[in-house]
Amino acid sequence: MTITLYDLCGRDTSRRFSPYCWRIKKALDHKKLAYETIAVPFTGIAKIEGNEVKTVPMLCDSGRTVTDSFAIAEYLDEAYPQTPALFDGQHAHAMSRFVEAWTFSALHPGIIRMVAKDIHDILDDEDQAYFRRTRETTLKTTLEELHADRDRHRQGFQTNLLALDQMLRRQRFIGGATPNFADFIVYGSLKWPAACSDYDVLPQKPRVLDWYAHLDA
Amino acid sequence: MTITLYDLCGRDTSRRFSPYCWRIKKALDHKKLAYETIAVPFTGIAKIEGNEVKTVPMLCDSGRTVTDSFAIAEYLDEAYPQTPALFDGQHAHAMSRFVEAWTFSALHPGIIRMVAKDIHDILDDEDQAYFRRTRETTLKTTLEELHADRDRHRQGFQTNLLALDQMLRRQRFIGGATPNFADFIVYGSLKWPAACSDYDVLPQKPRVLDWYAHLDA
Repeated sequence: MTITLYDLCGRDTSRRFSPYCWRIKKALDHKKLAYETIAVPFTGIAKIEGNEVKTVPMLCDSGRTVTDSFAIAEYLDEAYPQTPALFDGQHAHAMSRFVEAWTFSALHPGIIRMVAKDIHDILDDEDQAYFRRTRETTLKTTLEELHADRDRHRQGFQTNLLALDQMLRRQRFIGGATPNFADFIVYGSLKWPAACSDYDVLPQKPRVLDWYAHLDA
Repeated sequence: MTITLYDLCGRDTSRRFSPYCWRIKKALDHKKLAYETIAVPFTGIAKIEGNEVKTVPMLCDSGRTVTDSFAIAEYLDEAYPQTPALFDGQHAHAMSRFVEAWTFSALHPGIIRMVAKDIHDILDDEDQAYFRRTRETTLKTTLEELHADRDRHRQGFQTNLLALDQMLRRQRFIGGATPNFADFIVYGSLKWPAACSDYDVLPQKPRVLDWYAHLDA
């Protein structure tokens, strides 16, 4: 039975941009597990049968349903112990929570401000209304004002990425010689703007660009 | 044979403030290994026999000399495999490099700017001249100007600590239920200002304060 992943989409349903869904697509690829995706717009998530938390990614596998990207990664390591690990031990599992918190607190605020308008523009009509209402409330400004000011957010965002750049002097991935779930967390958050915008958020840092290109291949 | 650690000191040789040395003192305590420290001022480091890289911490154990805090941690796990691990696997080892890079790139720039003048003031005369010359060159300003402006640096520094605060919602330490070397890296960098200054750099975040207090006990 094939693994099914509900994956956030734009008006063009082949446009997939959720950072949390990208984490899981990379994790499934890492484990060489076959899967199919079902495209779902923001306003379709609440209608997915069995999705009690109303978020994507949602993974269905052999009658089991798992939501929350971190919980899905834990499930995949448990259910497929013969495949390459996402967490090779308790420390790595815990430390992935640190990388998750860093990504959320240091990268996401800049990313959403840089590309909120671009995300809006790739959504279907119902999603556009939903997205504008919720994000303008949360961010306390309009999508257009954020868009006009995005170069200012890029500088701080790129400064925050120095941690990745400095680490890459020593090793190829956050996981070491090969990527682990922490790499997929950060990759997913950088794939997010790349998948919905032409605005280039990445710094001109060869090590970061190489790391990203490798994971994006 | 007792382990010996060369540990940076101020004019009062009981004043120990190097973040890199604190990482190792915590690591040695974690492993319940007895050790003694030898206090050394900045300008004394180059005179330590056998210290080819001219940095502290330098650890001497059974005729072996190890410098660089990360290399010392690796040595301790290798030499004392029966004691609690600093890295419980390859991923944890690699991810500690990420935490090290984050600490260096996101925390240290703020800390040095907030307390450079206070560090200077606790040093002996020869170290004061050395510290002022080298740091004013690197930081491109005077210690006094940094001091006058430190409240401004505190805000950005505390924002960068959100990654730790958010992670602590889920678990007690970066290492999970118990601390690992990544915790000692971050702790060392927060102990650094605490050990040389009355200026309180920590945010009023109960989870961060509890985590710090536990490691500082």
